[in-house]
Amino acid sequence: MPLGFQVPDHQVAGHQACDGMVGPLVDDSGHFYKPLQNDERGSAEVAFYTSFSSNNKIPNHIRRFFPLFHGTQLIEASDGSGLHPHLVLQDVVSSYHNPSIMDIKIGSRTWYPEASDEYIQKCFKKDRESTSLALGFRISGLQVHGSKESGFWKPDKKLIKNFTAKDVRLVLRKFVSSNTSADSGVDPDCFFASTVYGGSAGILAQLLELKAWFEDQTIFHLYSCSVLMIYDKDSVSKGRSSGAEVKLVDFAHVVEGKGIIDHNFLGGLCSLIKFISEI
Amino acid sequence: MPLGFQVPDHQVAGHQACDGMVGPLVDDSGHFYKPLQNDERGSAEVAFYTSFSSNNKIPNHIRRFFPLFHGTQLIEASDGSGLHPHLVLQDVVSSYHNPSIMDIKIGSRTWYPEASDEYIQKCFKKDRESTSLALGFRISGLQVHGSKESGFWKPDKKLIKNFTAKDVRLVLRKFVSSNTSADSGVDPDCFFASTVYGGSAGILAQLLELKAWFEDQTIFHLYSCSVLMIYDKDSVSKGRSSGAEVKLVDFAHVVEGKGIIDHNFLGGLCSLIKFISEI
Repeated sequence: MPLGFQVPDHQVAGHQACDGMVGPLVDDSGHFYKPLQNDERGSAEVAFYTSFSSNNKIPNHIRRFFPLFHGTQLIEASDGSGLHPHLVLQDVVSSYHNPSIMDIKIGSRTWYPEASDEYIQKCFKKDRESTSLALGFRISGLQVHGSKESGFWKPDKKLIKNFTAKDVRLVLRKFVSSNTSADSGVDPDCFFASTVYGGSAGILAQLLELKAWFEDQTIFHLYSCSVLMIYDKDSVSKGRSSGAEVKLVDFAHVVEGKGIIDHNFLGGLCSLIKFISEI
Repeated sequence: MPLGFQVPDHQVAGHQACDGMVGPLVDDSGHFYKPLQNDERGSAEVAFYTSFSSNNKIPNHIRRFFPLFHGTQLIEASDGSGLHPHLVLQDVVSSYHNPSIMDIKIGSRTWYPEASDEYIQKCFKKDRESTSLALGFRISGLQVHGSKESGFWKPDKKLIKNFTAKDVRLVLRKFVSSNTSADSGVDPDCFFASTVYGGSAGILAQLLELKAWFEDQTIFHLYSCSVLMIYDKDSVSKGRSSGAEVKLVDFAHVVEGKGIIDHNFLGGLCSLIKFISEI
């Protein structure tokens, strides 16, 4: 591990720095270092962040939904393979002690029309086998803080991959419950729903703000991009703010909007909003 | 032709009763007779209208966007092949003299997840070759009234099939222009845009009302369904109401919503709204 860097504690989806694999790193100053993928995905994500940062048509109240971008930097890769270019981003969970996090990939299709047939087929299969096609989104990862004793509930990737619509409904309830556990027999109490999902600063309000922007913006089409929902259960248990935040991440498959709204993202976002509003 | 029936004057898309083909008929009392397709599409459309008519969860202000349903009836088919079951629907254009009409198929995909692979492939190809995939909708047919002398501008089906995003933008402008002509060199003046698209009773206001319902309703998923936009240019020229109306038609590919919003329809509808709002 390069000095001064560490593997993120709270990564719930994506490539992870472990078992000799290259993965993202964080430092103590709240930066998140995401290794650039060698193929066009790496350059596409740099291009997105560069374009987004300098685009003066993005309203300020929308910018807060995106990690801050601090350029790229050559640092030692997490697998010890030498210097590798990394995106330097805001570590969006650094201010949380025990963040409960859900990563939700938005869109009923994760491929863009101009992609190769091979790529489309690969994504299409995944979209069809997951809830993406039916729901317009799929859960890619999550961790829910239980208690000091029980720690986090962080279901296995394989389990998450096979989530059905019914599972998604249940997990969205578990995410804001005080009695979260791996035990599927426990009926989630949704104790924190009104403070985390609801309220003027809650997740639903934030998603609705994003939705209004997506009804209008024709700059970007975000394929295979995720909504992160983050909050701090300890904090809300103690009667403080839940710190509920929505962030968009993963822009390796962003294409130009060419004057057309991102109806694929918007449709999926509306579906997620409906699921959450029913809790 | 069976006595008392005639071929509709103002049909812009779909199977037409001509050249010995079976097609819809109308009568003098404002009914539209749509021959049931022999395969599952016919029964699916009857099932939809029956279910929709009797569903008390459909708000009244939404019902007006659907043709009234008067059951089914055995009548002589338009091709003289004998008695055939028909859907008896409201003829949504019977009250117009020279209606300008556009038929827009909504959704970036026209197939439903449970369909056969063969059917999906067929639709997928059409969606990709038309503007459906990129825009979330495609124009299926249109007629625009010019003047008494010039009559209607009704582009050929083959021409419509090859519409690009740019063509769609132009045609949506031509639809509400006083100088509409087949000549692509003429810049449409959008003379009627504010009265037809705009205003509290205009098409945009109606589409927004529909949108609000689609953000919430989880009863039906409408695949391959069209929005009809209808208005009367003569009427608006004379300073009277434009009679602008939005109707949904073609429900042969409706499936149950199963508690999930129709994000495919909603996304496409939002894209159409954005296109129209820019005019």
